[in-house]
Amino acid sequence: MMPRAMLRALFDAAIAAADPARCVPPCLPPDDGGRLIVIGAGKASAAMAQAVERQWSGPLDGLVVTRYGHGVPCERIEIVEAAHPVPDVAGELAAQRILDKVRGLSESDRVLALISGGGSALLAAPAAGITLAEKRAITSSLLRSGASIGEINCVRKHLSAIKGGRLAVAAWPASVLTLAISDVPGDDPAVIASGPTVADPSTALDALNVLDSYAIDLPQSLRCQLEEGELETPKAGDPHLTRSTFRLVASPRQMLEAAAEAALQMGLTPLILGDAIEGEAREVGKVLAGIALSCARHGFPLRAPGVLLSGGETTVTLKGEGRGGRNTEFLLGLAQALDGAPGIHALAADTDGIDGSENNAGAFVGPETLARAWEQGVDIQRHLAANDAWGYFSALGDLLVTGPTRTNVNDFRAIFVGME
Amino acid sequence: MMPRAMLRALFDAAIAAADPARCVPPCLPPDDGGRLIVIGAGKASAAMAQAVERQWSGPLDGLVVTRYGHGVPCERIEIVEAAHPVPDVAGELAAQRILDKVRGLSESDRVLALISGGGSALLAAPAAGITLAEKRAITSSLLRSGASIGEINCVRKHLSAIKGGRLAVAAWPASVLTLAISDVPGDDPAVIASGPTVADPSTALDALNVLDSYAIDLPQSLRCQLEEGELETPKAGDPHLTRSTFRLVASPRQMLEAAAEAALQMGLTPLILGDAIEGEAREVGKVLAGIALSCARHGFPLRAPGVLLSGGETTVTLKGEGRGGRNTEFLLGLAQALDGAPGIHALAADTDGIDGSENNAGAFVGPETLARAWEQGVDIQRHLAANDAWGYFSALGDLLVTGPTRTNVNDFRAIFVGME
Repeated sequence: MMPRAMLRALFDAAIAAADPARCVPPCLPPDDGGRLIVIGAGKASAAMAQAVERQWSGPLDGLVVTRYGHGVPCERIEIVEAAHPVPDVAGELAAQRILDKVRGLSESDRVLALISGGGSALLAAPAAGITLAEKRAITSSLLRSGASIGEINCVRKHLSAIKGGRLAVAAWPASVLTLAISDVPGDDPAVIASGPTVADPSTALDALNVLDSYAIDLPQSLRCQLEEGELETPKAGDPHLTRSTFRLVASPRQMLEAAAEAALQMGLTPLILGDAIEGEAREVGKVLAGIALSCARHGFPLRAPGVLLSGGETTVTLKGEGRGGRNTEFLLGLAQALDGAPGIHALAADTDGIDGSENNAGAFVGPETLARAWEQGVDIQRHLAANDAWGYFSALGDLLVTGPTRTNVNDFRAIFVGME
Repeated sequence: MMPRAMLRALFDAAIAAADPARCVPPCLPPDDGGRLIVIGAGKASAAMAQAVERQWSGPLDGLVVTRYGHGVPCERIEIVEAAHPVPDVAGELAAQRILDKVRGLSESDRVLALISGGGSALLAAPAAGITLAEKRAITSSLLRSGASIGEINCVRKHLSAIKGGRLAVAAWPASVLTLAISDVPGDDPAVIASGPTVADPSTALDALNVLDSYAIDLPQSLRCQLEEGELETPKAGDPHLTRSTFRLVASPRQMLEAAAEAALQMGLTPLILGDAIEGEAREVGKVLAGIALSCARHGFPLRAPGVLLSGGETTVTLKGEGRGGRNTEFLLGLAQALDGAPGIHALAADTDGIDGSENNAGAFVGPETLARAWEQGVDIQRHLAANDAWGYFSALGDLLVTGPTRTNVNDFRAIFVGME
């Protein structure tokens, strides 16, 4: 098999492991024919709802919000599409309707919450006293600031009427079972989609510190609300959270282990470097290039033929006006540092199928990447300076385009180290 | 053994493996009692000269230049100290005298060149038509630009009368044996100390491209000399290089393998991630933190108790006016990303004993680092913004101070992942 086909097969194995049709049914409660109220949000949540519908025999109703293009046909559960990563009115309306659905339930009611990455932006319900426009402006500034996803979500929680455990508080005293697909380092339930059904360890003051440390403008009234704790989220031990349980159905770790298993079946030695690799995307590319070069030159930490696998979420600090996402920018840094080293090929992609601003999931890099680009007059330095990784790989015809995968276990990176 | 003592013992094992007293004698030519003309440059080169003196019974004379503070007493070989990383007059004089020593030799003369990292800055002999002041200004700008060490040395070679093979050309027709201690990724003889005795694959035009891509000011006359190939270095196949041979006596790889062996003897599983890890120091810290966290949480790529080892040279793009070096800045990024994770301790240090601007080799990080700093009012964000990693670890009393080690196999990083 050619290196690029092998890498693609590893990516497909990773995606399959996180497919809701495969990972949701085993985690549903016993099918007693009773009624479930299904709510949810995230890039995988429509596909999760479909998996529930196909499995559950009893009455089902509810509403799930997903990103534009990530919907799938459902018969009993309503699917709404909304904007990501910057919220829109569709997301706000859906969040309000989800809150309305779970308010006023009784102790005998059962709520099933289908949560996945992206849910944080999709569940756009500003807390009392904040307009959606203000919330949108703050989120947009934060996304461009270089703040980590954890920091962004700390802020989102405290500006929200639904995140940081507030959805479970609204559903109380009904029981709430959350099934979650993790796209976050450490798989912390409080972090996935900003934890709408679990206690929030972060405080309003933490949120204010994040906003200030990235010098984000915010209205004086909002500053006061944060300072005075009016926007505080429910904490561990809150009695309104006692009937809420949480179950992880897919994670970056599982997705990487599935890719490692697929690699073994192809005769490749896999090494998983981690499921939560973070850092500035192009610099992460340089570091992993150093590890791959050591494998090629010295046979450690991995002997060729093998594949270095990693997950997690890198960051891009935008300086240029180009197009692309963190996975293609990672690949630019990687390709530059590999400098045409023979036998090394890589794929990096967002497992949701959309890497950043365009319609590609990611891209491929090979030993000939720099030379081919050079021949075409495509200059890697210029594309790095412009944050235009998409343009670079588009010119080469090396984009990976899958369309929305309807799951989301964060980034997937595979670096194949072959024989020279 | 406590984690910090273990890390220190690993560092000591790494340094010992690269000690000239240990690694030079086995690589000397058979001691036939004949005369050797010894020259050399680099942070390890005085110690290498001492090792030669102690071993060689025949006549010895020569001159070796090392960094201030890296000298050792020698009886037959003259030791000169000079400035690093920005050259000074002492280095210029020493370089001229070294050139004078090897010029006009006959075919029966034998030159022994003792080369190690740092030699590039220490062998400051501007090519014809360039002043030392111009060369110094360009080097200084490059060092602050974020250019890689490879790019910096490509420029240095073409502005030099001695680097890039020109020293061997000067010694022809004498035979030249080079013993080298590598501090560069890939251990390329043409890169170590800018390869004074080996063919140079880079061209004058490459040097000009580096200068332009980092927008370094240069005199019009120099630009013309580079454009017209007047400053071209000898290339592979040049007849003046046929009597020059090269032997690597210590390298980052050997140093890491010695540390891995020492780890095994302590009952720790070692994993060498690579001997040539590059990237912006604080971002490399984040990436290695992600790998260490995966070890702690999931047991891959390494099962605790174990130690992640790596070498290579990170880069610091200076934005602030603080003090420190790339290893302490790496540790700031690491500590921030580890966020107090239990059971993880780290040491990062320059194997030459001096990390950047101060007198420390590196520093230590532990699970309590952030909390202790916080209690003392020492803010990691502020120290990162100021590039003041030294100030951070100095306030904590966590600097590693060894003094000059008189060897140089680049950076050493060890991350211990223990049981929680």
